[in-house]
Amino acid sequence: MRTTTENGELALLLEVSGTPKPGNVDRHREYDDLRFEHFVTGAVCAREGLQLAADGTAVGEAFRRAVAGMSQQSGGNTQFGALLVVTPLVRAAVADELTPAGTRTILEETTVEDAAKFYEAFEYVDVAVDDPPDGMEPLDVRRGADAVPTLRAQEITLEDLMERSADRDGVAAELVNGYPRTFEAAAAMLDGTGPVTDRAARAYLDLLADEVDTFVVTKHDRETAEKVRQRAQAVRDGEEDVDTFADDLVERGINPGTTADIVAGALFVALERGLEV
Amino acid sequence: MRTTTENGELALLLEVSGTPKPGNVDRHREYDDLRFEHFVTGAVCAREGLQLAADGTAVGEAFRRAVAGMSQQSGGNTQFGALLVVTPLVRAAVADELTPAGTRTILEETTVEDAAKFYEAFEYVDVAVDDPPDGMEPLDVRRGADAVPTLRAQEITLEDLMERSADRDGVAAELVNGYPRTFEAAAAMLDGTGPVTDRAARAYLDLLADEVDTFVVTKHDRETAEKVRQRAQAVRDGEEDVDTFADDLVERGINPGTTADIVAGALFVALERGLEV
Repeated sequence: MRTTTENGELALLLEVSGTPKPGNVDRHREYDDLRFEHFVTGAVCAREGLQLAADGTAVGEAFRRAVAGMSQQSGGNTQFGALLVVTPLVRAAVADELTPAGTRTILEETTVEDAAKFYEAFEYVDVAVDDPPDGMEPLDVRRGADAVPTLRAQEITLEDLMERSADRDGVAAELVNGYPRTFEAAAAMLDGTGPVTDRAARAYLDLLADEVDTFVVTKHDRETAEKVRQRAQAVRDGEEDVDTFADDLVERGINPGTTADIVAGALFVALERGLEV
Repeated sequence: MRTTTENGELALLLEVSGTPKPGNVDRHREYDDLRFEHFVTGAVCAREGLQLAADGTAVGEAFRRAVAGMSQQSGGNTQFGALLVVTPLVRAAVADELTPAGTRTILEETTVEDAAKFYEAFEYVDVAVDDPPDGMEPLDVRRGADAVPTLRAQEITLEDLMERSADRDGVAAELVNGYPRTFEAAAAMLDGTGPVTDRAARAYLDLLADEVDTFVVTKHDRETAEKVRQRAQAVRDGEEDVDTFADDLVERGINPGTTADIVAGALFVALERGLEV
């Protein structure tokens, strides 16, 4: 039997091993400066943080350590979002509550300290984010640990932060809403057939076709993200070739990263529920 | 800084990520029943054994645990040989003696208990091996733990076992001879340029061109292995296309596994010596 920590790391590795995953690094497509090997290394070195989560360390600190580990490679940000998805799931799994309600409880129990550690995690890598709304500059995540005094003064928890971002960040939306898309994708993987990496690629395409990827909205704009969603739907419906789509997104530097993050979470849930590798 | 354990696991993952690696599973080529995902899972679950080695557990027991972990996937034997290469290297690295002499010392210090654990490791997966020489049937590794009473009666250490196999097993030869090919390949990787997985693929081809792969000798015969060596040399000399060679080997089920095992060891040494990923 694999441990929960092993399943956490394995989920990250299987996510990047799924191909084709249009727009993201996978085992057949990479960028010159962001390569498959960077994701592999990121996953290996994130494991210590996931182990902390499995051993009972609070979500924020476990996440911070996972990101610190992940950053031990030269590609930059590889799995920040995936770790934000997976870390609370690991906590829920070891509490034997890997359910929508169980993940809600994990979020509800987060504290100001978890929020502080979340901000500190931004110190390790550059994460593409939007400018904060007017008046929220003191809480710009890019301030990293400098924002912590404001967090403490305002008694903002990690759950509060996620709720504030949920309308524009698909990862935050999963966390505060009991991971609806993650659990649905996990169920589809468990019902599916064939190699796990093929199931991961299918889950990615389904998720991409169903909702706009908020990371693409952030890095580009909503129109671009909506077009990507429509093309993913066309691929799913057999109207567009997946490799053409994939090559085009890589060429234009469009990376539906939020969708990949959710696939990592779905893989973790499926592995915990007995998906055979 | 990555830990020695992380580098051990990472070496296994980067080994299988290097492509093209003619005849072996890599991230572009796999078999229906032995897939990339099996190697990824094997590496993730072998880590606990490598961690034991790093923490001071004897080579035999650490190796047994690594193989037990590795077997937590449905593809069968993925990294038995690679773990036999890497586990003593991990012990040497944590002793700050990752040198030919240092690895010799690790082997010299092995005991009958290490030999017993080595035999027990064969219980977890089917490993392709030759029939033992006449009179050696009681020590056939396929007997697994059943051979242990004989080992104890004859006071055979892990070093003794490796010395007996060194003339027909390239992994055993590395272990008893101070890892000459491993260190040479590691030096070439450190001198090289480009993505680490490309360096791993180059190292594989160089090793395959330089000496016959003993796993191919065992599974097929020496003539087949020598032809594979010659073709690898032709590829290296630009006289044969690497993909044609790779496709042909996969089709014929010829897997130069010993060469891949040594690449894993070389990656570990290079990572410990500062190879940047």
